[in-house]
Amino acid sequence: MYIQRINKVQEYLINNNIDGFIFFISDDHGSEYITNTYKSVAFLSGFTGSAGTLLITKESSYLWTDGRYFLQASEQLKKSNTTLKKIGEDETIIEHISTNLNSLAVDFKTLNTSFANALNNSKTKLIHEEKLLDEIWTNRPKLSKKKISVLPDSAVHMSANKKCYKTLSAIKKKDNYGVLITALDDIAYLTNARGKDIKYNPIFNSFMLLTRVNGIDTYTLYISSTKLSMEAKDKFKEQGIIIKPYNQVYKDVKTFKHKIYFSPSKTNFLLYTLMENKKAIELWPTLNKAIKRKVEIIDSKKAHIKDAIAMCKFIYYIKNNVGKRKIDELSASKYLANLRKSVGAHDLSFSTICGYKEHGAIIHYSASKESNKQILNDGLLLVDSGGQYYYGTTDITRTIALNNITDKMKYHFTLVLKAHIALSCAIFDKKTTDASLDLIARKPLWDAGLDYNHGTGHGVGHNLNVHEGPQSIRHNKVNPTFMKKGMITSNEPGLYFENEYGIRHENELLCVKVDKDHLGFEPITYVPFDVDAIDVSMLTDSERKWLNNYHQLVYNIVSKYLTIKEKEYLRKITKEI
Amino acid sequence: MYIQRINKVQEYLINNNIDGFIFFISDDHGSEYITNTYKSVAFLSGFTGSAGTLLITKESSYLWTDGRYFLQASEQLKKSNTTLKKIGEDETIIEHISTNLNSLAVDFKTLNTSFANALNNSKTKLIHEEKLLDEIWTNRPKLSKKKISVLPDSAVHMSANKKCYKTLSAIKKKDNYGVLITALDDIAYLTNARGKDIKYNPIFNSFMLLTRVNGIDTYTLYISSTKLSMEAKDKFKEQGIIIKPYNQVYKDVKTFKHKIYFSPSKTNFLLYTLMENKKAIELWPTLNKAIKRKVEIIDSKKAHIKDAIAMCKFIYYIKNNVGKRKIDELSASKYLANLRKSVGAHDLSFSTICGYKEHGAIIHYSASKESNKQILNDGLLLVDSGGQYYYGTTDITRTIALNNITDKMKYHFTLVLKAHIALSCAIFDKKTTDASLDLIARKPLWDAGLDYNHGTGHGVGHNLNVHEGPQSIRHNKVNPTFMKKGMITSNEPGLYFENEYGIRHENELLCVKVDKDHLGFEPITYVPFDVDAIDVSMLTDSERKWLNNYHQLVYNIVSKYLTIKEKEYLRKITKEI
Repeated sequence: MYIQRINKVQEYLINNNIDGFIFFISDDHGSEYITNTYKSVAFLSGFTGSAGTLLITKESSYLWTDGRYFLQASEQLKKSNTTLKKIGEDETIIEHISTNLNSLAVDFKTLNTSFANALNNSKTKLIHEEKLLDEIWTNRPKLSKKKISVLPDSAVHMSANKKCYKTLSAIKKKDNYGVLITALDDIAYLTNARGKDIKYNPIFNSFMLLTRVNGIDTYTLYISSTKLSMEAKDKFKEQGIIIKPYNQVYKDVKTFKHKIYFSPSKTNFLLYTLMENKKAIELWPTLNKAIKRKVEIIDSKKAHIKDAIAMCKFIYYIKNNVGKRKIDELSASKYLANLRKSVGAHDLSFSTICGYKEHGAIIHYSASKESNKQILNDGLLLVDSGGQYYYGTTDITRTIALNNITDKMKYHFTLVLKAHIALSCAIFDKKTTDASLDLIARKPLWDAGLDYNHGTGHGVGHNLNVHEGPQSIRHNKVNPTFMKKGMITSNEPGLYFENEYGIRHENELLCVKVDKDHLGFEPITYVPFDVDAIDVSMLTDSERKWLNNYHQLVYNIVSKYLTIKEKEYLRKITKEI
Repeated sequence: MYIQRINKVQEYLINNNIDGFIFFISDDHGSEYITNTYKSVAFLSGFTGSAGTLLITKESSYLWTDGRYFLQASEQLKKSNTTLKKIGEDETIIEHISTNLNSLAVDFKTLNTSFANALNNSKTKLIHEEKLLDEIWTNRPKLSKKKISVLPDSAVHMSANKKCYKTLSAIKKKDNYGVLITALDDIAYLTNARGKDIKYNPIFNSFMLLTRVNGIDTYTLYISSTKLSMEAKDKFKEQGIIIKPYNQVYKDVKTFKHKIYFSPSKTNFLLYTLMENKKAIELWPTLNKAIKRKVEIIDSKKAHIKDAIAMCKFIYYIKNNVGKRKIDELSASKYLANLRKSVGAHDLSFSTICGYKEHGAIIHYSASKESNKQILNDGLLLVDSGGQYYYGTTDITRTIALNNITDKMKYHFTLVLKAHIALSCAIFDKKTTDASLDLIARKPLWDAGLDYNHGTGHGVGHNLNVHEGPQSIRHNKVNPTFMKKGMITSNEPGLYFENEYGIRHENELLCVKVDKDHLGFEPITYVPFDVDAIDVSMLTDSERKWLNNYHQLVYNIVSKYLTIKEKEYLRKITKEI
């Protein structure tokens, strides 16, 4: 089946005398998560991982993927007779193409602009081809037609019209110009609307072009009209937003005479090539949606209280039921998802990571029927999960201690807690970048000769994507962002021991003003850390005090929503240490 | 006198119907330090500070400077009837120009390209004018004619020819192109030559244009031929470097048909406008000269040993003579400069900061006849100084404790030491940026509610400028650099209390490989910290151990070069605590 599909691509190559065809796991907007419409790599090669690039040549096919997927890919690619290319070990895809191919077909809509520019430096000619895939993939899933919803005024801090105006005005030019917005969360933010087009991500497929010509602003939303209710149409009209068909954006950027400002990381190469006069910048919505305003902060805290109720109930359930009834990673995840639903979440914010024992050490673990492990009353259970609420988005990790916790586990658990507390307590001047804060968290682990191979924190959207820029607390970030009051960022240091266990402690932190010159953090996640795995002797007085204060806060906020038994239990596990 | 000079500029403006003339404290290469040739702002306005921009309009004149110079400028500007504009308080210079002026004359050679581009966005027309200043300033100092010297082969890790080749090859293009090098330390590095054109900075006025056309490389050095000895001419010929007159670079970049790569921060606006086809990048020499190679590291350590001998002798002298003989900030600085000379320094690496008591709290303090303070046997003395050796460049700060050290002083002195030790001991992965390391040093101070208003470290040149990019340990750096083995960077946290005292502890750190995945630091400054001001009870065991090991190292390296009395003293102050 897969081989036949690849053969059809090869026929096209031979008939058109083109050396190769490249397929990406990517949509037309550079989104982190994609819908089935865009899973051409899986359709053609059989590989189902989340990261991979497929190159088909006249005689062969190759898939590049990273270390997480080497095993899975080598298994799955047998079906399509595709050669696995290991990122970091084999030649890079750019090297391969520039050495071997004179011409390369690709759907420019799913082609990342910087990748294209890297290829443009080689002699390989790029050819735009978007029809072939539809011909081969006869039952290709259609784009979602789900209706979008407009946020109620009470949930909005600034009207869509004003946000569009600000986006244009942020470009301080007197000439005529336009701004192209392609990132789906930026559009959701700008229009004060939400959709259901991608699982876990309340966004909708669309583009926006804002123009300022001879002093007149025009705000155009490119979207399939089937996605708009009468209410949404009215609302957009009221906000001065014109509606045009989704694909018309390509014509309009081509015919617009003046300079267009755009964000290169989220703009597909077809749009890029169609714009004649263009300039790459960081757009106003990308920078501003990260800075949560009063109504968003109040609503976010509501969402976090709801989420904490679900999580506290879940911890109670796990701690009191493992070993007594059959619980496995999948059923625990489902139990937690149901608890979230019962407190008001309409979706999860990402696929739950519920890793028991050695599975906790796999950073991107997702339990499957095959891997699903029974949870016994023994060792550590890592649960990283979150919910989508109409008034906020959550992301939390707790590591739950069951029986037989060794001194080594306690040592590691407490070290990670020290890292978490260090960042949580940081007070920093207004010229502090996200990147530089990372080492505050890492220092206690580095001092112990330990580290974790992921970032310490990412921005979190407001009733939007759980991963949101521009800020992210990573010491290797090359384009750092100044921390600003109102940003919400995760704080999630960890330690991972292959085939043993993993530990991660994650809260969301709201960046707050401490005094005239300084900022700090307020945790807005309200769930206890498991004291059963803490070695109290390793904590300094101030760390112990921080933990006790935090647990007191958790109890005060959450206890009133629990059953008597849960409440008693929460009192016990949040008592002073 | 100053008023007449300004009047002449105003006559020019009226005769040519131009609205303003702007003067910068800048040379044609964007250098940090400039020679008297470029001190037009002082010549015209009377203001002698190191940072300031002078705008002369048909009727008035204005000078923008920062907080360090408000007092000095308001005094000095009276002579020229120039209005002081305070940076951070008044309108910015860009705002002023774009609101009030339709045309602005400026010598494009001293105009920074990004400043020009900021102005280009306004409606103000820029006019290049470089002759007027020479007409008014009849005795304007000429550019230095000092001969340059070529480094001996034993001091060189890579030939000039190969460095030029690498600079071109770092641009992976198949087309014809050129690389323009304008930063004077980059040129000194590329050519393996040194000059004496700017005090403290062993560089020479020149430009380089490297071109690769039809596979043929041409390396051209633009320099006044009077600066070249026969030996230098022969050496450059041997290395395939062609010599052309200094100013010919302007013609050559204009007539070169192909794309020219350049570094925007160091390229003057005249060159910028003359290049028709250009692209801004980070150039190979800028990145590579920071990474010191074996011969440079061995030589640097030699320079640091020499420097340590001078510093240890100086500390002995100060500690044993204050209160007994008349010593003031200027005479102490001179005494230290002579010690450096006696151990082999041919120059200082910057103007010595010798700040006694409250003067130590002025970060950029430079003692003058007026400010010069007598040093008594009381309180703290901060000395930040360095030497230029033919085999390396040094930069060191020690804070010397005299009598009557209070508990508060000890507390602050020890806190800064903890910050210094924390960075010195850091072990970090290879994806760690300079910016992110900053908080390792700052954390102990932030935890105490204290901070310092400057970076923690800067790169140091090798027998070159004491301030050298690209790395610099500052948490607000927006374009961070990955730390690399071989980089030499200062580690200089501090605390400053206005009208009281200042404390800074500075070593130079060599970045070294710790294991396969990790880097760390080796201090290459060998001078004790003053134990008389250390509160040992504030140090952790590992901090105390670090200090004892460091002091043992200092003693082992330096003691053999000292007099018997100095050696005894060094043994005493480096003994275990």
